[in-house]
Amino acid sequence: KIDADRLWGDLMETAAIGGTAKGGIRRLALSEEDRRVRDWFRTRCEALGCSVTVDGMGNMFAVRPGQDPELEPIAIGSHLDTQPTGGKFDGVLGVLAGLEILRTLEATEFRTRHPLVLVNWTNEEGARFSPAMLGSGVHAGKFDAAYAYGREDADGISVETALDAIGYRGGEPVGSMRFAAMFELHIEQGPILEDEERLIGIVEGVQGMRWFDVVVEGRESHAGSTPMETRRDALVVAADLIGRVTAIATAAGGKGTVGHLEVEPNSRNVVPGTVRMSVDLRHEDDAQLDAMTAALEQQIARLGEGPVSLSLTEIWRNPVVPFDADCVSAVAAAAEASGYPSRRLYSGAGHDAANVAAVAPTAMIFIPCREGLSHNEAESCTLEECAAGAQTLLDAVLIYDRR
Amino acid sequence: KIDADRLWGDLMETAAIGGTAKGGIRRLALSEEDRRVRDWFRTRCEALGCSVTVDGMGNMFAVRPGQDPELEPIAIGSHLDTQPTGGKFDGVLGVLAGLEILRTLEATEFRTRHPLVLVNWTNEEGARFSPAMLGSGVHAGKFDAAYAYGREDADGISVETALDAIGYRGGEPVGSMRFAAMFELHIEQGPILEDEERLIGIVEGVQGMRWFDVVVEGRESHAGSTPMETRRDALVVAADLIGRVTAIATAAGGKGTVGHLEVEPNSRNVVPGTVRMSVDLRHEDDAQLDAMTAALEQQIARLGEGPVSLSLTEIWRNPVVPFDADCVSAVAAAAEASGYPSRRLYSGAGHDAANVAAVAPTAMIFIPCREGLSHNEAESCTLEECAAGAQTLLDAVLIYDRR
Ligand SMILES: NC(=O)NCCC(=O)O
Ligand SMILES: NC(=O)NCCC(=O)O
Repeated sequence: KIDADRLWGDLMETAAIGGTAKGGIRRLALSEEDRRVRDWFRTRCEALGCSVTVDGMGNMFAVRPGQDPELEPIAIGSHLDTQPTGGKFDGVLGVLAGLEILRTLEATEFRTRHPLVLVNWTNEEGARFSPAMLGSGVHAGKFDAAYAYGREDADGISVETALDAIGYRGGEPVGSMRFAAMFELHIEQGPILEDEERLIGIVEGVQGMRWFDVVVEGRESHAGSTPMETRRDALVVAADLIGRVTAIATAAGGKGTVGHLEVEPNSRNVVPGTVRMSVDLRHEDDAQLDAMTAALEQQIARLGEGPVSLSLTEIWRNPVVPFDADCVSAVAAAAEASGYPSRRLYSGAGHDAANVAAVAPTAMIFIPCREGLSHNEAESCTLEECAAGAQTLLDAVLIYDRR
Repeated sequence: KIDADRLWGDLMETAAIGGTAKGGIRRLALSEEDRRVRDWFRTRCEALGCSVTVDGMGNMFAVRPGQDPELEPIAIGSHLDTQPTGGKFDGVLGVLAGLEILRTLEATEFRTRHPLVLVNWTNEEGARFSPAMLGSGVHAGKFDAAYAYGREDADGISVETALDAIGYRGGEPVGSMRFAAMFELHIEQGPILEDEERLIGIVEGVQGMRWFDVVVEGRESHAGSTPMETRRDALVVAADLIGRVTAIATAAGGKGTVGHLEVEPNSRNVVPGTVRMSVDLRHEDDAQLDAMTAALEQQIARLGEGPVSLSLTEIWRNPVVPFDADCVSAVAAAAEASGYPSRRLYSGAGHDAANVAAVAPTAMIFIPCREGLSHNEAESCTLEECAAGAQTLLDAVLIYDRR
């Protein structure tokens, strides 16, 4: 049995690293705050007798030996980076629940057959460096390291430079650590479990997702003296596209979001010359996602027939990822053993587990969060929910380890 | 007859003060560049025997005596400050054409009945310190001096501090200089004259204009796991409003612009929680502008019935300013005398003349600029256009002076 209060204490203690006035966390990947929470994590793992290694992407691995040194380790973990105005649970819960599990096993002197490895993946959020889940992506062979090192933040600082700046470019070759399986605990970040009063989500897979950059090029001109008819207003066209993205997603039963948008020159009395924006499309069915993408391309082409030009660049795509049936059944058995009300569901958010699924049997566990709210400082879970998630994670690992 | 080459030489010489690589000017109000061009201006005026005074807002007045010391002076002039990426003609032309006129009169030893006063108004652009046309606004009693002194730039530097820093807080009480009339030459900043191949615009007045701030408050949430139906997406609603602003302006035959927009948290996979944006509405008829404002309020109220809340704040308004019929007829007669193709039109942009019109008979003269482009480093006029504008300005002053 895991210790719920101890887990909660860790959650609250680390929430202070990058803690915001509104009770959230701002801990962007490879920032100074990220360095501090990484140092904290390393110290805690080493205090439990684990050996901590860091790979070339800054992914951190804390290994607890098993009975059989021939067996590959079972991985648990998630990520410690957050959104610019993130909450206290997204990612962090999966790592700290893993720490709590190692501590529980250590306290009871229980040794699993497989070694266990607790992982902190680099830049899961994709908020500072796009795309998301970069560290696990290189680990799983989805991105090559050169691509990942070259990704830049808004100030032009590369992942490589940022890794060196905080001293977390490690010596281990990326992807060299092989897993027997991986289990990731995470908050749902959506409203389904709460609405149905379920404590545990047995995650069967992850939605397919595609990220696009759109540039709308019009022409700057004077807001007072340029007639409406001769304007080439980039923002008016961008606004039209935003409405289309919503319509496309709603019609397909998927999701469509413009989360990022910049206007140039962004002056009150100047007709906008350029707009740069993102589009995020998701669906549980890749064929539907293809249809959504085609509809987006069609709207871009249609809008581009006017006096403003548009470009669409796909910068990232992840297909629908179904999780491993054995791992999923271990999660289901664990939830049932504790008598937690549960349901099977798909993840709307991307997760490191979706990358790892390409190289190891993988599954995920969700717990509810208030009003499905995430990527928000008000993100909230109860101690009981966190504890149920951590217990299910421990039990799933033990069930899988015994098979 | 003014000397076109001499005027052009002055335009090119002063364009180097704050000149940019792309051929524009960056000469923000009360900056070091502004100080240098002011010093240049003072030296040139004094060399012509004018006495130069500076008022408490930094407005500069170069007086050339007339035959009748009892008469109030006829004012000409404009502004020497520019947008951050401004062109070589916006404002500057009106001041340097005035200088060329004084030089022409001096060379021909012609003395007008009224004294003439060439004015350089402080902070016309409103780019460094908002609102625009601040110096002429205090002169005309539209703003009080304490308000103007307290306006701050993005770095928190006040107008008062900036005036002292460049040594241009003068001793003359603001507004103490009375004008018999004022004529301002300016580029059109719109496409009408060029499209109709007219060399001179006889400006009958200035559009009414209102500036608003809009805040759209929704709720940040996860782009992957928040169902479309439960989102409170501030940007989707802002986009809807942008379309409405265009529709309102087009329907009313006015202008409507969203030039400034900021998204929070502006992250690719976060449903936007807050959008802050500007709305600029203009019309040649105040009743229509009232109707546009009411339509905007109605859209704000309608959109606010959904899951997102909106607020609208009017931060500045200027009514329609019709120019003085006698001054306008002097401009028309001057254009006709030279045989320049001309038309009457309203100004879409705000100008110092629109403030001065509250305290003296006033009119303006426009010349075309390429593609109506302004507030852009590519802003461009020909030597012939500048010369025609300066000649019309001189002739209008002489016609008015003789009446
Ligand atoms: N879990 C999570 O928020 N991942 C970020 C990637 C995504 O946008 O789904
Ligand atoms: N002439 C000019 O650009 N004035 C600035 C104020 C405005 O019209 O927006």
